Amino acid sequence: MRILLVGAGGVGGAFAAIAARRDFFETLVVADHDLARAERAAGIDERYVAAQVDASSTDAVLALCREHRITHVMNAVDPVFDMPVFDAALAAGADYVDMAMSLSRPHPEAPYERCGVKLGDEQFAKAGQWETAGRLALVGMGVEPGLSDVFARYAADHLFSEIDELGTRDGADLVVTDEHGNEVFAPSFSMWTTIEECLNPPVIWTGDGSGAGTWHTTAPFSEPELFDFPEGIGPVECVNVEHEEVLLMPRWIDCRRATFKYGLGEELITILKVLHTLGLDSTEKVRVKGVEVSPRDVVAAVLPDPAGIGPRMRGKTCAGLWVTGTGKDGRPRSTYLYHVVDNEWSMAEYGHQCVVWQTAINPVVALELLATGVWQGSGVLGPEAFDAVPFLDLLTAYGSPWGIEDREPAVLVSTPVHGAGRIAPADAPPLS
Amino acid sequence: MRILLVGAGGVGGAFAAIAARRDFFETLVVADHDLARAERAAGIDERYVAAQVDASSTDAVLALCREHRITHVMNAVDPVFDMPVFDAALAAGADYVDMAMSLSRPHPEAPYERCGVKLGDEQFAKAGQWETAGRLALVGMGVEPGLSDVFARYAADHLFSEIDELGTRDGADLVVTDEHGNEVFAPSFSMWTTIEECLNPPVIWTGDGSGAGTWHTTAPFSEPELFDFPEGIGPVECVNVEHEEVLLMPRWIDCRRATFKYGLGEELITILKVLHTLGLDSTEKVRVKGVEVSPRDVVAAVLPDPAGIGPRMRGKTCAGLWVTGTGKDGRPRSTYLYHVVDNEWSMAEYGHQCVVWQTAINPVVALELLATGVWQGSGVLGPEAFDAVPFLDLLTAYGSPWGIEDREPAVLVSTPVHGAGRIAPADAPPLS
Repeated sequence: MRILLVGAGGVGGAFAAIAARRDFFETLVVADHDLARAERAAGIDERYVAAQVDASSTDAVLALCREHRITHVMNAVDPVFDMPVFDAALAAGADYVDMAMSLSRPHPEAPYERCGVKLGDEQFAKAGQWETAGRLALVGMGVEPGLSDVFARYAADHLFSEIDELGTRDGADLVVTDEHGNEVFAPSFSMWTTIEECLNPPVIWTGDGSGAGTWHTTAPFSEPELFDFPEGIGPVECVNVEHEEVLLMPRWIDCRRATFKYGLGEELITILKVLHTLGLDSTEKVRVKGVEVSPRDVVAAVLPDPAGIGPRMRGKTCAGLWVTGTGKDGRPRSTYLYHVVDNEWSMAEYGHQCVVWQTAINPVVALELLATGVWQGSGVLGPEAFDAVPFLDLLTAYGSPWGIEDREPAVLVSTPVHGAGRIAPADAPPLS
Repeated sequence: MRILLVGAGGVGGAFAAIAARRDFFETLVVADHDLARAERAAGIDERYVAAQVDASSTDAVLALCREHRITHVMNAVDPVFDMPVFDAALAAGADYVDMAMSLSRPHPEAPYERCGVKLGDEQFAKAGQWETAGRLALVGMGVEPGLSDVFARYAADHLFSEIDELGTRDGADLVVTDEHGNEVFAPSFSMWTTIEECLNPPVIWTGDGSGAGTWHTTAPFSEPELFDFPEGIGPVECVNVEHEEVLLMPRWIDCRRATFKYGLGEELITILKVLHTLGLDSTEKVRVKGVEVSPRDVVAAVLPDPAGIGPRMRGKTCAGLWVTGTGKDGRPRSTYLYHVVDNEWSMAEYGHQCVVWQTAINPVVALELLATGVWQGSGVLGPEAFDAVPFLDLLTAYGSPWGIEDREPAVLVSTPVHGAGRIAPADAPPLS
């Protein structure tokens, strides 16, 4: 296996560090628009080579694939570049793995009711080409989407006879301090992507439980819920957010409802609402005293680089899937399958902060399963298309075990997190 | 009188429109960095001439003064340009009027306790030069500061024998809608200046009531108070904000306390806190994808131009001074002197929105009093250094009467407007 890693940011750097401890591949080409960053990430292993690349150019990525006889393209850049990287892999005759699917576009008339272009639509539209070529595009193979989807497959195969809801729930108790020890606001993940995810209309699947069903959208930050996260993290307020799991899971697993709720917390919700109210979430360039910039790029630029905050961060992050339905014994069941990473541990063990580390370990595990032939397939597939057990076993063997907890339903918060006012992109719907 | 108006933005444009109805001056040169904007403002009166000017250059302003034999410089640009315009006027042998004083700088060690450089310090430091030259710099002569300071002088001369507090209170019930009739966030005043005012440490004067006293600062948004504004506006939550009145009034009027509270409302307070938390209030340039911009300039650029929102705005704005102490009859007195402008009226009558119109009318009145010799003086003086009665009479004669209301004390809000969290620049102090 000869891997091209496109993107040496936070997640790409952690991917390189984790893969360096495994021997399932022959070479890893670390490519980034910033060659110095690629060189830093590549400097840790003699199988690694650094390269400069423009991820927006299919031709540039294709040329790199050919130059290094790449068999697997690992996409670790912002999802805005998904399609050129995805197309280049197919053209190069390589397999492809990413951690976020091609971007959505809201419905032009009813953005908070109906879907426009959905996450991954552009990729699934080309599934036939991948099948014909006998090549695999494994999409959404990070932690969320990714490990959460593996959990869904595990729950369907081993825990439940019927599933009501596949509810991905993500929360953390991370705190970042400045050089004086004061808590500061510093997102642990790309602010550009956080804005994209959180201000897009959240998508929800409702089905009949036997395959048929539809997707619809709601207002951002809708259906706030207090979810109790394990291993000491505790209750965090979660809201609906647009995420790949909702698009992936129902394609392979029967359920009556698929949701994604993100434990943003009150502060980040307020910040995102204000950015939207002011138009600072916009990616369209504005003219400012003789230069042109996109406001969202400015917001990302003033915040600390998520890849650099690890040493000043403490706490744990949790990704998981809360499944409700009927257990194998025919009785009602409510189970949370989860994976927790402590930042202190990931910093000490790998030198990477826990959120990017947790995202990066899953595609390494997946590539190892593909390299060893345990996972095989062609077309455009999600993680739930493959057997979950060898994945979860290998994840544990990497030293990062997962957990399972039977539990009571989460508490729905009876009022929206914030008074709606004009700051809200739209009012959260009333809760029953 | 030959006036140079520096700045043809919202307030400058309204100044030109109001002055056009008066005959106390011979010519008005409307100068702006944007010549087209100066030409639009100057196109309404044959006594008006448009010019291009760089307000950051004392030489450029001085050259314009000489070219047009200017007797009075009217400064209507952002206060960051106060000093070059102020210095140019003195060098040209002209009198000078502004509506916002030279900027403050926080105390380097204890910004929320002690004053650093105060508003107007740079201007007052040059008072001797103005006195020696026999020229007048009338500083802070808008509505707030300006009319509020005139009210202070009126209260001291005609209503009170002893003053406890001179409390400027500013509030509005303005609403801006978009083309579809939906309420949107659109500040009615320069966002750059709003950020400057609201995130700087608020300043408060405490004195012995007979001239001696000191200034100190508090945390932004401190001492929230529900103040009931007249003419149907109703209660608005007001917080301490740095403002010139607190620096001006105690220099001429004995009082035990001088404060300024601004009815920002919950939404704007949240927005300002978020901008500060993210560092988007910063004026220092950051590098964003190959260009350099100041985040605060970007925030101002994405919002609607305050000068253009008039047609989509409705409601009233109120500026005023709440005075407490002992009346002329020896009994306790609590009186609010105020000036309300209805946006519908100012748009219909002058074509300018009410907030900039209300700011602009006061320097026109003051210049007319200087032109007719009713007001005379030299040095660096605030509006309270002059007799209030002719000013208030002339304001009424302009068709914009003021009001007076005896009332109960305002209600102090017992908890800060927002939970402090990290969004607050600092916690509001506890209220007694």
